[in-house]
Amino acid sequence: MNKLYAVGLGPGDPELITLKAIKILKNVDKIIVPESNLKGRSLANDIIIDYVDKYKIETFYFPMNNNRMQLDEKYSNLVEKIVNIINNNKTVAYVTIGDSTIYSTFNYLWLRLRKYNIEVEFIPGIPSFIAVSNLLHIPLTLKNENLCLIEMPENQEILLKYIRLFNTIVIMKIYKRIQILLDFIEDNKNLIEEAFMVERATLKGQNIVNLRQFDKIICKQTYLSTAVIKTRNYGEIRGY
Amino acid sequence: MNKLYAVGLGPGDPELITLKAIKILKNVDKIIVPESNLKGRSLANDIIIDYVDKYKIETFYFPMNNNRMQLDEKYSNLVEKIVNIINNNKTVAYVTIGDSTIYSTFNYLWLRLRKYNIEVEFIPGIPSFIAVSNLLHIPLTLKNENLCLIEMPENQEILLKYIRLFNTIVIMKIYKRIQILLDFIEDNKNLIEEAFMVERATLKGQNIVNLRQFDKIICKQTYLSTAVIKTRNYGEIRGY
Repeated sequence: MNKLYAVGLGPGDPELITLKAIKILKNVDKIIVPESNLKGRSLANDIIIDYVDKYKIETFYFPMNNNRMQLDEKYSNLVEKIVNIINNNKTVAYVTIGDSTIYSTFNYLWLRLRKYNIEVEFIPGIPSFIAVSNLLHIPLTLKNENLCLIEMPENQEILLKYIRLFNTIVIMKIYKRIQILLDFIEDNKNLIEEAFMVERATLKGQNIVNLRQFDKIICKQTYLSTAVIKTRNYGEIRGY
Repeated sequence: MNKLYAVGLGPGDPELITLKAIKILKNVDKIIVPESNLKGRSLANDIIIDYVDKYKIETFYFPMNNNRMQLDEKYSNLVEKIVNIINNNKTVAYVTIGDSTIYSTFNYLWLRLRKYNIEVEFIPGIPSFIAVSNLLHIPLTLKNENLCLIEMPENQEILLKYIRLFNTIVIMKIYKRIQILLDFIEDNKNLIEEAFMVERATLKGQNIVNLRQFDKIICKQTYLSTAVIKTRNYGEIRGY
């Protein structure tokens, strides 16, 4: 039976890839690389390019929009092409920035691949938020602490609920909601111990922003950004 | 100035270490390896032993109990010894299973090292729960999903609050509370889509347990175990 490896590549620094990922990428017959925009830029490609033979790489554009119908149609087409590649090669790797189980496009593919009875092995990678906490020197969880990982919500009220329940809040996909986050942090100073955002962690143009220095903040971009908030309260949910 | 690297080694499989971690471990003058029990077994040591020269390794017993006073005293002694090592060597690495920012003993050390004005660089590793989700082929977060990471609480009520608020609950440090978890899963079948526990992920003796097959469960050990629960409800907190 042919086999597909779902390989996590880590946050972006090519040295933050695992030995196992490199071994698999060197051994497979084909590597499927997702592109996140039509300009053909691919972070995944940048990570693997020095480790593998170029001829093995097949690049696909994976749309990332919010229109479910469009997404379904495009993915159906993609899945057919990818199933073809897997059928024509003994081993294939699909590579993902970070880890395949954390907000990865691979999951849309994986849900659709299940019915084709293809053997899949997942190879873990370092998620971007783990790179971020290491860059910030902020422990995400100490003993007796809890953590939540969320996408940036549309309003302050939802954020406030998480803040009250957790020691650490990791916020991904901030994009255009950066102002809501900044306003929230300013309005809830008394609940927040530390608040940082890292843009392009471990990549060229990496930018670390202290979100409590409200008046000094210059955000060059908010794509590929992750915020980490350490709260002062120790969580109603845990009964403190 | 002398420098300390806090290096995450990943979950246990020596191939799940990063290129960067290996490069640093090969280059530093000394490597501090924590032992979690007095028998001298060290998972961290098992991971690095094939990559580095043995003579560089210094092993220390890091107590992991709940007595704050005892812990404080022992750590004060340890910190003195470790500061000595750092002062006598140009570069030193402290290695941690998984990642240094997730439930790691390094944080106790780190809090105490701050006052010595030692330069510290964190090198991320794959946390065990990421290895677990990859083994289980369970996406921790799909688009619009949220995740919480908690230690196993002392009662069902606390778990129930998390279940109602999150799509994915990752539970660490289950140990002797396994029966509370099993009872909870049986009592709340209607809220739970999937529930698995992995013991010793990526290590010898790895054991994957479907926690919903309640009557068939044989847990050989509950140390180094992580549970992943996918819930059916989509979270009151997110307004669905």
